[in-house]
Amino acid sequence: MKILIDAFGGDNAPLEIIKGSIDARQQLGCDIVLVGNEEAVRACAAENQLDLTGLILHNAGEGIPVEEDPRKILKEYRNSSMGTGLQMLAAGEGDAFVSCGSTGALVIGANYFVKRIRGVRRAAIGTLIPSDKDPYLLLDCGANINCTPDTLNVFAIMGKIFMEKVRGVENPRIGLANIGVEPNKGTELQVKAYPFLEASEDYNFIGNVEFRDIPYGAADVVVCDGYTGNVYLKTLEGTAMMLMGMVKGILTKNAVTKVGALTMMGGVKDLKKRMDLNEYGGAPIIGLRRPVIKGHGVVKAKAMTSAIREAIKYADSGVIEAIAASVPQREDRAVEEEAE
Amino acid sequence: MKILIDAFGGDNAPLEIIKGSIDARQQLGCDIVLVGNEEAVRACAAENQLDLTGLILHNAGEGIPVEEDPRKILKEYRNSSMGTGLQMLAAGEGDAFVSCGSTGALVIGANYFVKRIRGVRRAAIGTLIPSDKDPYLLLDCGANINCTPDTLNVFAIMGKIFMEKVRGVENPRIGLANIGVEPNKGTELQVKAYPFLEASEDYNFIGNVEFRDIPYGAADVVVCDGYTGNVYLKTLEGTAMMLMGMVKGILTKNAVTKVGALTMMGGVKDLKKRMDLNEYGGAPIIGLRRPVIKGHGVVKAKAMTSAIREAIKYADSGVIEAIAASVPQREDRAVEEEAE
Repeated sequence: MKILIDAFGGDNAPLEIIKGSIDARQQLGCDIVLVGNEEAVRACAAENQLDLTGLILHNAGEGIPVEEDPRKILKEYRNSSMGTGLQMLAAGEGDAFVSCGSTGALVIGANYFVKRIRGVRRAAIGTLIPSDKDPYLLLDCGANINCTPDTLNVFAIMGKIFMEKVRGVENPRIGLANIGVEPNKGTELQVKAYPFLEASEDYNFIGNVEFRDIPYGAADVVVCDGYTGNVYLKTLEGTAMMLMGMVKGILTKNAVTKVGALTMMGGVKDLKKRMDLNEYGGAPIIGLRRPVIKGHGVVKAKAMTSAIREAIKYADSGVIEAIAASVPQREDRAVEEEAE
Repeated sequence: MKILIDAFGGDNAPLEIIKGSIDARQQLGCDIVLVGNEEAVRACAAENQLDLTGLILHNAGEGIPVEEDPRKILKEYRNSSMGTGLQMLAAGEGDAFVSCGSTGALVIGANYFVKRIRGVRRAAIGTLIPSDKDPYLLLDCGANINCTPDTLNVFAIMGKIFMEKVRGVENPRIGLANIGVEPNKGTELQVKAYPFLEASEDYNFIGNVEFRDIPYGAADVVVCDGYTGNVYLKTLEGTAMMLMGMVKGILTKNAVTKVGALTMMGGVKDLKKRMDLNEYGGAPIIGLRRPVIKGHGVVKAKAMTSAIREAIKYADSGVIEAIAASVPQREDRAVEEEAE
């Protein structure tokens, strides 16, 4: 298994990317190709006394800045570390590509260079999110601001296959994220999507799931447009971080509470670990012909290693082949999509 | 000050509504009119040994079920406790109306019976949300699924006035809720609204605020369409409840942690109180000619009392008069709205 890594993606690149890659190679026994300016990678490694032995370095440009127009990945930044890695993946020079760089550029570049599975008109960012029980998959988390009922149907099929193949969940419960459980709730998209998803025999649709219940794992797969998914994910992240900060403040308030806190260190550590969005290490862009994994922009070495672990799992799972065999082809699709 | 109360709104009506009303009258010294089936109110009070002395009872129907089509508030349920209360408010038979019943019915009924301030085309549910610092106002929280840039502009004006008059915040920071800080982020609505809000000289627009930062109080007033606001609010609520449940689990895990927990009881109680969405007791529907307050559907007596306190504050604040004097009138408004 050979994993291609964008050495210049994310706020902590290339240092944390290199560290995480070294650890991944040792822990997971995979081949790692660090894609990006070789001189800068070597300089960073030397400066931080990191041993690059065993890693393959593939020279290319550096990263595409997050504030840059993401479409530039197709032109000015075509030979950036991200653009090059995507093209290498498409050419079969690796089994998966992991990048913590600009989400927009990665989505556009992956669609263009790696291409979608036949029948998939929109690839989705799928994020595994921890709940108080098992994690659930939310898709789309931001790749597609505007979606149609048919898009959500394909998300449901892809999400089901992901949870079965990658997470081993049997007959996953598919929910439509919505502001109410009634079929007439939500925007025009949800109102139209509900009967569409309900009519499907491809998966176990359990109806609308409310945003108040999703954190508790109300469904194994939660489908929504990318705008809604992004609002949900960021709100969950912000709320959790704020609350955990306040809880930390309570535990460490003074000498007495600190002693009290010692009694529950195990529980607190366990909670932090369970709620860590980086635990599942990066979100696959589901629906592409080859595995592309988006790591968190502020990724640290440990999370980078997790992202590589997830990339291997994804590449090994057969999820892409299963999606290709399951997604309805053009002639079977809804007429409304055709008119798009 | 005379407050009209929907005796049959919410899951715990009429018992908790009656209890909260009795407490409010004693604590706040206001007159309370309990609107709804008098016989049922008296029976409930008798059964629970509650003393109705001093409360005014106004006989009407009972509640409109939440699963009922909310538009029925205008016809079949016109004489329900909610419909009657709204009509009494419109007729000047009280200074404010508080209901914990169906949000949809309350919004439709309030718009129809109480009417909007001239120049306000959409009234918004404004919710004060606790942060780790001061609370911020989010509007709209669900009254208007579809909004225009002009609607958001009016929300910004109303939100500013609310925070100044009701909460005493000077020159409140107005943020547009969005999935990125850049002006080109979001759906068509946010992209179009950004320059519109930025051009306004009526308030202190600080740009887009990200959902990850809003929980920390990134703005004093956060404006968004009702769909987005509802997604945010419910996600925040669900995440906070789940996490607090897990923290509780850690504190009470065993005899040892329970002893440890004793050292931080004050902090935990304080956190629970600060994070309690009911603390600010109900959300005003801002933009109406008279004060209508939406209480939480699962309201308990204490939260009901808070809602009545907020109703008094709102009625006393002069916020409605100030909005009427500030909102641009039809001839000044954006052309796009005219075409609606």
